[in-house]
Amino acid sequence: MSKQITVFAPATVANVGPGFDIFGFALEGIGDTISISETDTGEISITGGKHCESIPVDPKLNVAGVAVQAMFDEAGKTGAGVHLHIEKNIIPGSGLGSSASSASGAVAGVNMLLDLGFSSQELIRFAMIGEGAGGSTPHADNVAPCLLGGFTIVRSYDPLDVIRLPEIPELHVAIVHPQLEVKTSVSKKMLKREIDMKTATLQWGNIAGMVTGLLTKDYELISRSMEDHVAVPVRSMMIPGYDSIIQIAQDSNAIGASISGSGPSIFGFCKTGTEAKMLTGRFGEVFEELDIEYNLYVSKINPKGVSV
Amino acid sequence: MSKQITVFAPATVANVGPGFDIFGFALEGIGDTISISETDTGEISITGGKHCESIPVDPKLNVAGVAVQAMFDEAGKTGAGVHLHIEKNIIPGSGLGSSASSASGAVAGVNMLLDLGFSSQELIRFAMIGEGAGGSTPHADNVAPCLLGGFTIVRSYDPLDVIRLPEIPELHVAIVHPQLEVKTSVSKKMLKREIDMKTATLQWGNIAGMVTGLLTKDYELISRSMEDHVAVPVRSMMIPGYDSIIQIAQDSNAIGASISGSGPSIFGFCKTGTEAKMLTGRFGEVFEELDIEYNLYVSKINPKGVSV
Repeated sequence: MSKQITVFAPATVANVGPGFDIFGFALEGIGDTISISETDTGEISITGGKHCESIPVDPKLNVAGVAVQAMFDEAGKTGAGVHLHIEKNIIPGSGLGSSASSASGAVAGVNMLLDLGFSSQELIRFAMIGEGAGGSTPHADNVAPCLLGGFTIVRSYDPLDVIRLPEIPELHVAIVHPQLEVKTSVSKKMLKREIDMKTATLQWGNIAGMVTGLLTKDYELISRSMEDHVAVPVRSMMIPGYDSIIQIAQDSNAIGASISGSGPSIFGFCKTGTEAKMLTGRFGEVFEELDIEYNLYVSKINPKGVSV
Repeated sequence: MSKQITVFAPATVANVGPGFDIFGFALEGIGDTISISETDTGEISITGGKHCESIPVDPKLNVAGVAVQAMFDEAGKTGAGVHLHIEKNIIPGSGLGSSASSASGAVAGVNMLLDLGFSSQELIRFAMIGEGAGGSTPHADNVAPCLLGGFTIVRSYDPLDVIRLPEIPELHVAIVHPQLEVKTSVSKKMLKREIDMKTATLQWGNIAGMVTGLLTKDYELISRSMEDHVAVPVRSMMIPGYDSIIQIAQDSNAIGASISGSGPSIFGFCKTGTEAKMLTGRFGEVFEELDIEYNLYVSKINPKGVSV
């Protein structure tokens, strides 16, 4: 009988206010479930279940396939055969790291199944290669929290250096996913290529504030540091209702709210699950009124990352 | 008999690697000693002692005078008279926050002497106004650590929001001050007004890494995060011997080294006082060979800031 494993790879929120391209955290309950079996075909094959209709099953085009292939290439496992069956419980294109979940879950699962012995930092590198196959520049701000869990910082790409914050305060996340199409590749092109030094300095003040707030469990400081002067001013223009959502988060005494990744999902941080639940309800009303379909999620920060 | 107080206002290191315009820390033993007396002249008067030859004593031009005047204006103390006698144990223009020491020490001292009741955050604001009189844009990355002690972050100027890290690891600082003239105002003009997004992202990765390293007492992470892509590449060109100093710091297994403020002083972080002392010795050899006069200092991080 062939070996088999099923992993859950969480959805993730990247950028997280000021941390454009460097901050990210993992969610609970939302993400990909990937069943992986060893086969004797000598090839990687993929099938997709729920919410995978728009995803290519050709392993050379699928982010999970490309990621696993990169890992096989490095391991010298050219003749290995695996079959991946991917199920998603959230629609791709939400801005919640859907392709990162597939790529990360696949490499973490195959690494375990075939006992390849790669470290988390190495898996991040393979998952990044996979994610790059989805059309965007390889980046790690979704794959890192997906694989490591918790709140992560991509300090550097060359060499790759990902830090996982050892301890963060209790945070409950309210998420609304308005069903608007925002392509990450298009969204990236809208951003300025240069920023003035004054804006950059504001941004790094908030980054330093955010990290300090998280590590010292200072909700007020996290709240003050959530502003982003780089991506949100541009990306929020593509999300109808964004300003109302931010206003509601402020009025509800949420810690802060911002765009998840390149959108269209928006998240808010709350101190309790009850507050986060109430906040999603009010987020929903905004899109109800705009007559835009939406999904709501409430989650804590997932400390584990990919799990069996 | 008139009231009198003498305060010590420490020298400070600003920027500290990647934290251009936001990071700073206070030193021990180096700085200004300011003797302040209440007078019945209804005016601010200033005299200077050691190393104050180049400093204007006109209170409208002296950073300490301007800072105290700003505080008097806000307190409604228009008729108050104080005399400040300033002594420095380090030459101004070193890049170790000499004018910030004078401005901070003066407002902190007068605040205590006349029992004006201003908070540290308010004193930072007055000291900034004073420092601005020295020809540079008012900034807080020297006055904040001088007043608060420890390692500080200027998160925001509008509103002013300064964070003092609650705990940092033991750090010993090796400092060399080569006696070259570097005017902060000129040095600021040499910096680019815009930076590309890729550089900015690298910079905030290091800022996040530095704060995490300090708060989790991870010397390795502090070391990896010390690189600056914004100011050091430009400012180091004005400091002969800079590259040798950095090489020596690396060879000596120092945690890291960088320019203090806008230079010309260079500092290195070490884990022990013995290492820091050895490192300054080797720093000195570089300038000995270049036939440039220099001063050496070894200091811990001063947790107190301005003290009586």
